[in-house]
Amino acid sequence: MSTVVAGKGLEGIVAANSGICWIDGEAGVLAYRGIDIHELAENSTFEESTYLLWNGRLPSASELKEFSAQLAEARELNPKIIDLLKSLPTTGTPMEVLRTAVSALSFYDADEKDNTHDANVRKAFRLTAQIAMIVAVYDRVRKGLEIVPADKSLSHAANFLWMLNGVKPSETAARTLDVALILHADHELNASTFAARVIAATLSDIHSAITGAIGALKGPLHGGANEAVMRLLHAIDKAGADPVKYVQEMLAGKQKISGFGHRVYKTEDPRATHLRRMSEQLGKDSGNPKWFDMSRAIELYINSEKKLNANVDFYSASTYTTLGIDIDLFTPIFAVSRISGWAAHVIEQLDDNRLIRPRAEYVGPAYPTHWVPVAER
Amino acid sequence: MSTVVAGKGLEGIVAANSGICWIDGEAGVLAYRGIDIHELAENSTFEESTYLLWNGRLPSASELKEFSAQLAEARELNPKIIDLLKSLPTTGTPMEVLRTAVSALSFYDADEKDNTHDANVRKAFRLTAQIAMIVAVYDRVRKGLEIVPADKSLSHAANFLWMLNGVKPSETAARTLDVALILHADHELNASTFAARVIAATLSDIHSAITGAIGALKGPLHGGANEAVMRLLHAIDKAGADPVKYVQEMLAGKQKISGFGHRVYKTEDPRATHLRRMSEQLGKDSGNPKWFDMSRAIELYINSEKKLNANVDFYSASTYTTLGIDIDLFTPIFAVSRISGWAAHVIEQLDDNRLIRPRAEYVGPAYPTHWVPVAER
Repeated sequence: MSTVVAGKGLEGIVAANSGICWIDGEAGVLAYRGIDIHELAENSTFEESTYLLWNGRLPSASELKEFSAQLAEARELNPKIIDLLKSLPTTGTPMEVLRTAVSALSFYDADEKDNTHDANVRKAFRLTAQIAMIVAVYDRVRKGLEIVPADKSLSHAANFLWMLNGVKPSETAARTLDVALILHADHELNASTFAARVIAATLSDIHSAITGAIGALKGPLHGGANEAVMRLLHAIDKAGADPVKYVQEMLAGKQKISGFGHRVYKTEDPRATHLRRMSEQLGKDSGNPKWFDMSRAIELYINSEKKLNANVDFYSASTYTTLGIDIDLFTPIFAVSRISGWAAHVIEQLDDNRLIRPRAEYVGPAYPTHWVPVAER
Repeated sequence: MSTVVAGKGLEGIVAANSGICWIDGEAGVLAYRGIDIHELAENSTFEESTYLLWNGRLPSASELKEFSAQLAEARELNPKIIDLLKSLPTTGTPMEVLRTAVSALSFYDADEKDNTHDANVRKAFRLTAQIAMIVAVYDRVRKGLEIVPADKSLSHAANFLWMLNGVKPSETAARTLDVALILHADHELNASTFAARVIAATLSDIHSAITGAIGALKGPLHGGANEAVMRLLHAIDKAGADPVKYVQEMLAGKQKISGFGHRVYKTEDPRATHLRRMSEQLGKDSGNPKWFDMSRAIELYINSEKKLNANVDFYSASTYTTLGIDIDLFTPIFAVSRISGWAAHVIEQLDDNRLIRPRAEYVGPAYPTHWVPVAER
């Protein structure tokens, strides 16, 4: 059999055809179904962008209305899932909770045994609505607060903040999260999406694929990076240190600064542009520009010193913190958004499926090595 | 960036260096750490083969004793996991149960936040012991039977049958399952193992990787194939049909016969050889050779008609059925075995890690397509 030896981590290997996401890493372009992320961040909503990702084009007014209604209608969490959330020890992380609860969702999904395109779209609505609910409900449960019932009249982003905080979010807060959800909704064959496609390609169910994707997103090289950024900002704040000096010392000690550089982008990550803008605006509006100012100082230093650009994770840290969101919810919120892209990729994979099964280059003991009785070892 | 376009499903792409498993698909060779699967099936045990997969060489007598003791000692299922198993609706499949319960295991693992090599080896012992327990305990729970406590004096295979059936297995039954577990323990970068490595490569935890792998194994193109074989045998039996005629009609109707052919093997799957032998022997010993005879007739027909060879799934169906195991436990038992290889691969991945992040060939709407206001669509 002829084989091609891929670069480590499959770098530079085209593993699938996909009509969902276009990335030009050299030019710093990200587009969903051909539409630039900048246009979407400025004009679209999470609901509309999700329609776009799932259907390949923007919806008409009536299509968008129906789509949004269907997503809102899916804001129903089985009481057994709430029992499960209450039963899990609070020593675990919200990502472990989300992984376990999404796996359990399959038991209560009427379409579980139906792996057709249409059934998976119905399941995608429920997963999208309910992943957000699980994150919000679990945060209330672990804090001993009352669970806030979903408000089906709100947008996806506003309802999430409502269920999380128990107060109706300001227009700015809701729009900030809405844009953050648009920006994180898809990113081609990133590790979690690729994991979802590998799982789906065995013709397993979408809950298996999404559960696996959540597990991948949990990793600090993927979804965990903005949590690391915020922990750094807190450490600098606590030490009362100058951010640039603090980071200089970290670099001198060969420590990695999270939130910079990207496997794919050689320029600025186009998503960072919007998160920087929102972080700055929120800082001004809230009268607490500390996190933005600190971030900006670090960014300028790393830009000049290491020639590395901020990525999507860098300014989402200060943005979410200024929205009052706990650090360990940053990665779950990434999942609240990325389910949109995961679902699009799983459905695309199944529409023209082949098992994803690469080979390994064997580097172990020579064949044949022989089994010998234990007395002779 | 220069890219290489892979065959669909990454066929022929070498995605990693690995010292665990050697497959020569042309020659029909499978070897763990250089030792031929035939030698292992004839001489080794699941414990010894797992030591081999994890450590790269056969254990000494004292190493094997200590390893087996550590695996037996890990037969402790947190009562909260048993509560979870009891709480899940019996309308779900055992694979959904296993996926959910393994995800929940992380909450009770003392090493959860430690992703070092040594911690992952400790977690691998617990996962290997407890996946078997979860499968057995859940089967008792769903049938309303009392849970059978683990017997730490038994081998891994014998303890599984003991906890499943509540009677001590015969030597033949225990050895048959032991060999089946050896045969299924690893298979290089199969889809579930590859999913586990993609997830682990984000530096996520081993529970995430194994949960994702279980999700992949659940798919009918992967672990589900022997269930399909057994459903076919039952259908033929129920119809009182001649197996060859039945299969002829299926082929005429363009239906796929599960359990034949393999992406990698061009000859007979070397694992099938042992499962055929055990299926035949068990049929004779139990005085019920029906499933073996039916399988053999189908195999000979498909061999001659389609030039396809039986794979690992074909004779595991009749073997497990003759052992008295329910059809929907076949794939969970695959996981009971494959955790051994999954763990070896996750640990190998983390020992020399790089994020696994391929690219896609974009085939969607041209960039730039522009966002237009909804009124203009």
